Amino acid sequence: MNSFQEKSLQRFADTNKNRARFLIKCPDQQGIVAAVSHFLHRHNANIVESNQYTLDPAGGEFFMRIEFVCHNLENKREELENDFGAIADHFNMDWKLMFVEDMKNIAIFVSKEIHCLLELLWEWQSGDLMGNISLVISNHETAREIVESFGIPFYYIPANKNIRHEVEQKQKQILKENHIDVIVLARYMQILTPDFVEDFENRLINIHHSFLPAFVGANPYKRAYERGVKMIGATSHYVTNDLDEGPIIEQDIERVSHAHNEAGLKKIGQSIERRVLSRAVKWHLEDRIIVHQNKTIIF
Amino acid sequence: MNSFQEKSLQRFADTNKNRARFLIKCPDQQGIVAAVSHFLHRHNANIVESNQYTLDPAGGEFFMRIEFVCHNLENKREELENDFGAIADHFNMDWKLMFVEDMKNIAIFVSKEIHCLLELLWEWQSGDLMGNISLVISNHETAREIVESFGIPFYYIPANKNIRHEVEQKQKQILKENHIDVIVLARYMQILTPDFVEDFENRLINIHHSFLPAFVGANPYKRAYERGVKMIGATSHYVTNDLDEGPIIEQDIERVSHAHNEAGLKKIGQSIERRVLSRAVKWHLEDRIIVHQNKTIIF
Amino acid sequence: MNSFQEKSLQRFADTNKNRARFLIKCPDQQGIVAAVSHFLHRHNANIVESNQYTLDPAGGEFFMRIEFVCHNLENKREELENDFGAIADHFNMDWKLMFVEDMKNIAIFVSKEIHCLLELLWEWQSGDLMGNISLVISNHETAREIVESFGIPFYYIPANKNIRHEVEQKQKQILKENHIDVIVLARYMQILTPDFVEDFENRLINIHHSFLPAFVGANPYKRAYERGVKMIGATSHYVTNDLDEGPIIEQDIERVSHAHNEAGLKKIGQSIERRVLSRAVKWHLEDRIIVHQNKTIIF
Amino acid sequence: MNSFQEKSLQRFADTNKNRARFLIKCPDQQGIVAAVSHFLHRHNANIVESNQYTLDPAGGEFFMRIEFVCHNLENKREELENDFGAIADHFNMDWKLMFVEDMKNIAIFVSKEIHCLLELLWEWQSGDLMGNISLVISNHETAREIVESFGIPFYYIPANKNIRHEVEQKQKQILKENHIDVIVLARYMQILTPDFVEDFENRLINIHHSFLPAFVGANPYKRAYERGVKMIGATSHYVTNDLDEGPIIEQDIERVSHAHNEAGLKKIGQSIERRVLSRAVKWHLEDRIIVHQNKTIIF
Repeated sequence: MNSFQEKSLQRFADTNKNRARFLIKCPDQQGIVAAVSHFLHRHNANIVESNQYTLDPAGGEFFMRIEFVCHNLENKREELENDFGAIADHFNMDWKLMFVEDMKNIAIFVSKEIHCLLELLWEWQSGDLMGNISLVISNHETAREIVESFGIPFYYIPANKNIRHEVEQKQKQILKENHIDVIVLARYMQILTPDFVEDFENRLINIHHSFLPAFVGANPYKRAYERGVKMIGATSHYVTNDLDEGPIIEQDIERVSHAHNEAGLKKIGQSIERRVLSRAVKWHLEDRIIVHQNKTIIF
Repeated sequence: MNSFQEKSLQRFADTNKNRARFLIKCPDQQGIVAAVSHFLHRHNANIVESNQYTLDPAGGEFFMRIEFVCHNLENKREELENDFGAIADHFNMDWKLMFVEDMKNIAIFVSKEIHCLLELLWEWQSGDLMGNISLVISNHETAREIVESFGIPFYYIPANKNIRHEVEQKQKQILKENHIDVIVLARYMQILTPDFVEDFENRLINIHHSFLPAFVGANPYKRAYERGVKMIGATSHYVTNDLDEGPIIEQDIERVSHAHNEAGLKKIGQSIERRVLSRAVKWHLEDRIIVHQNKTIIF
Repeated sequence: MNSFQEKSLQRFADTNKNRARFLIKCPDQQGIVAAVSHFLHRHNANIVESNQYTLDPAGGEFFMRIEFVCHNLENKREELENDFGAIADHFNMDWKLMFVEDMKNIAIFVSKEIHCLLELLWEWQSGDLMGNISLVISNHETAREIVESFGIPFYYIPANKNIRHEVEQKQKQILKENHIDVIVLARYMQILTPDFVEDFENRLINIHHSFLPAFVGANPYKRAYERGVKMIGATSHYVTNDLDEGPIIEQDIERVSHAHNEAGLKKIGQSIERRVLSRAVKWHLEDRIIVHQNKTIIF
Repeated sequence: MNSFQEKSLQRFADTNKNRARFLIKCPDQQGIVAAVSHFLHRHNANIVESNQYTLDPAGGEFFMRIEFVCHNLENKREELENDFGAIADHFNMDWKLMFVEDMKNIAIFVSKEIHCLLELLWEWQSGDLMGNISLVISNHETAREIVESFGIPFYYIPANKNIRHEVEQKQKQILKENHIDVIVLARYMQILTPDFVEDFENRLINIHHSFLPAFVGANPYKRAYERGVKMIGATSHYVTNDLDEGPIIEQDIERVSHAHNEAGLKKIGQSIERRVLSRAVKWHLEDRIIVHQNKTIIF
């Protein structure tokens, strides 16, 4: 850990000591906002940021993210959670209360292409990605040197489709021991089993190197080149058991032209992948994402 | 009025019969959201869209836009306005309640360059700009033919700086008789007097042909060409008595290169001006803009 | 025709009287550029804009567009074409020489959604789209009123898949009589027969309302909404007999969010469709496009 | 140097052994392109990429960049340079011939904010920035730890306006000893003397943290926040003795909203600064930039 990062962490801790967030999902009905805001008012909490969205105002689903500060929060955690229970029951809410100073533990999975891993490490080192990068797991030794230079443990676990089960057992063991909250697949070129994916539902973030749903599957840059598209993109999404079909978190694109060959597309694409994955991970860490019916609401 | 426009207007009226919006500005304090949402709950109104923003959570200003539907709204207008008064007093609110079906009356001022005027007429004709374009005023005859082909009254009022007062008297008379709510300066090349500007505070929208504050004043494309910028832009803002210094509503830009001469920049710039002004006018018509200390909050 | 358009046409004619363009495609080999530039030098032509591209420098295909001015061009047309023949033969060129003042005749095909048609008519009326919009053909009466208000002939030819052959016979007759150079499918919702498509190879421009190859086929906005993409786009391409698989000319996109429903996506998408198709048509009119192996080179 | 970088350098050397570039500027006249392409043809060189631009076709300036491969180039360097002399004299050319495998030596100057420095180091380490980062000079110790971890020499030279001359003497000494070709001011917060700037004319690249000419001078993010702009940007330019007025190389922008405070603008702005400076440096290294009358032509 360098001095920038130390200062960033200190600043983060200072700012966020008394800060928390509700993420709420429930059937739309009258009085939800009134109840939640009344609850916070009663507990002397001050709303810092509030977002809501109603899917189909004529009787659909309601979503809310509300961030607040509350004096002496560390001693009120339990009280807040208990008191909110009654409201949540009344409105039939699916909800979470997160305390901002509890930083999430991140595991990064990577294979041979390391540009996305590097971006995350750089952002983390600069104090812009506020989570603990606890460890990196790879089926290649390629990234070891760089990862360890950041003082982060690197686990080499060779993998192929015939030993998938054993590999995942080892990975799960490591993830468990390190209390991992979220896994980032930063160009990890192995398919995960349904069991593994379910264990990390909505906590398993992938980067796909195309503007999904264009070029689902392998070799998107090659296929983009062959199709002659005028823009290429990247997509970050939560992983589900339908390949490249999970809820999209973020996408971005850049213009290309006939003058770019496949290698040129790939180089541009990698810079898009870097920023798309980095944004998606940050939004996850800031509890800005609610998943509903294979789509994301980003607050 | 053509058949598309008629259908759009009908669709608009059907959708918006029972729809209204609050725009609120007040000192930040606990309980505002709770009070407003409780109020709407009590009147059986259903929130359709809600946005809020706090300028400086440590004791600054609070802003809110809340759109709702309410059965039988036409008979409840007065009741809602009266009842809300008490809440507004308590929180020291600066507020407005707008009924969506009351479309705003628009006057467009234009000189010789008519691309921005055309975009507004086209959007209006397509049913995408939901206001009444009541009339067009110009200091040139250039636009008459086209404006009248849309069935819109065109007033030719020659203008120059020596007869500013008389010109504005004529304009004000026309604006008053037509109950104009908002004026759009779609490349109107005359300076307005402070009196005129004050009468239409926050209801007088201009398009400036540069990415303000770059190239304040005259001939921005010429100066952009001379400076060799790699992007050009346009800015829509409310007019104040400081030239080109009013609250910015919207900006956009496009890439240019050394290969564009001044005429080329102007051509690209005009397409940016078209869409920037059109967005700003739509946001104003949808009551999405709050002005605070020479800046806009756009909800 | 209004006064703006008249002035634009006059300006266009004045500027382009002595201007012409070569479009060249041939196997890459040494000396091509030297030969072409020497040819122009010999004929006292001055190069105004020159672009070239080599597909795979290790022995691939060479493409070139070169625009030049040449005093007294109208009397040298034949001479230039004849003289260039020898060079073309030597390098085995596929080539065209176009004289800019010969404006192309355009037919627009449209069904019920007219936003793309309107954009082309508006750009044309403003003098920004430099071709002759000779006529509009539609399988609905929807656009008649507006098209005729521009003084452009409108042909209503009802169509469905059972009478495809007869319909196309009528269309071909009209196209032939009017010496149409390029057809623009501005949201024409009928499939054309292979014969028809072949007759207009690389002269038949379509707009597809998605970022191809995402959402090939019907209902792209519905499917984009269901997939939860974070950006939507549009694609203009030359039509081939593989549906939505022809050479892409231009694409563009805009950001959307969870807050946009299908109708919202469609509204944003229509503004993208307008500008993407308009750019593609302009590039075609300016002879900026070379098709090679189902891709476009845009100079 | 890590293994990625080694592989990249090897790949670079392999690809570029026989590759060179002409940059040409001269009065426009007939026969230039014919002469240059004939010259390359005679020397059995194959054109890989060619760009040209004429400033004002009616008798202005002509610019050209032409990249070519030529078998056994290392033994033909002198011959090419000598032979081209005659052509250059004839057309009164200002010209340079650069051999791609001669990588440029780069010095980076930085103060306390290191995000731009980091981006350059990262790109360099990934093998995407093809030059030698020979050394870093700073008036603070902040960046030492990180710079030295890349194996790059770091020189701490305290600076202030009273000792400008002595400071620059030390800097010049170091630059000379290390045969520096280009200096990158990656947020170096000291003004350079006219002498120093002249020594590195068109080889001294700065990043300014605003969309110039908006917010020339100090504190652009603060002023952008106060003005309420809806987009912020960054500008990379060659340094001249007019502060922030040198030839612009690249600019980029991102959307912001009322919800961003000054710190938020700065964070977004830093990511723009990173990519804008990185692009400008790469274009310089690839000899893509010609400066003419305080503007850049980018090929």
